Amino acid sequence: MSDTLSVGKKLVSLCRDGKMMEAVETLYSPQIVSIEAVSGGPSMPARMEGLEAIKGKNDWWVKNHEVHSSKVEGPYPHGDRFIVHFIMDVTAKAGPMAGQRMTLDEAALYTVKDGKITQEEFFYDMG
Amino acid sequence: MSDTLSVGKKLVSLCRDGKMMEAVETLYSPQIVSIEAVSGGPSMPARMEGLEAIKGKNDWWVKNHEVHSSKVEGPYPHGDRFIVHFIMDVTAKAGPMAGQRMTLDEAALYTVKDGKITQEEFFYDMG
Repeated sequence: MSDTLSVGKKLVSLCRDGKMMEAVETLYSPQIVSIEAVSGGPSMPARMEGLEAIKGKNDWWVKNHEVHSSKVEGPYPHGDRFIVHFIMDVTAKAGPMAGQRMTLDEAALYTVKDGKITQEEFFYDMG
Repeated sequence: MSDTLSVGKKLVSLCRDGKMMEAVETLYSPQIVSIEAVSGGPSMPARMEGLEAIKGKNDWWVKNHEVHSSKVEGPYPHGDRFIVHFIMDVTAKAGPMAGQRMTLDEAALYTVKDGKITQEEFFYDMG
């Protein structure tokens, strides 16, 4: 199995188990770059870099969302990249959407180098 | 609405209606580049270029597959790119898989420039 597919399968498995932080800690490169489709404001730039920043981003996400259920489809590999499709039923716990239940439907494009994820890009429509 | 999202929505709508050739003819750039995750052999290279070649590829696909049902999810935009998730229940009409019914589950990454799709890349696992 290619590195790409193997890393993708591990990521999907951990995400299905709700172990996002473990995925970041075991599969991400120290030089990870994370890019959102849109910026979340000055405190949440679209582009973030480095393992500590991405751990912080995931920690914030986990603490601020109640996940009712989720569907994780993939990984879909192509060369050194793979795509995962996430559909999550969540309620925001803080911020402007606090208390609102919503469906997050997005695709993520990951790049793998030397067995580690070096970039993640999130694709979605804010509607 | 951004060019990317608008083109993505048109593509998804035409694909849902089974109008793949119309999508290619109306939304694709003359310089379209199409890249599969794997090559289909000497007569079906992973990378193909130009509108005529891509029309030929789509024409071959439509003629050689019976589509029982399909699900087209997206588009998921990010800058000048968008992702679409295709799940298709098909039976191959020719080639080594002739007569076999199978589920094609794949993601496609499209790049848009000046309102036209200039690149499509298909992501999937051959299993």
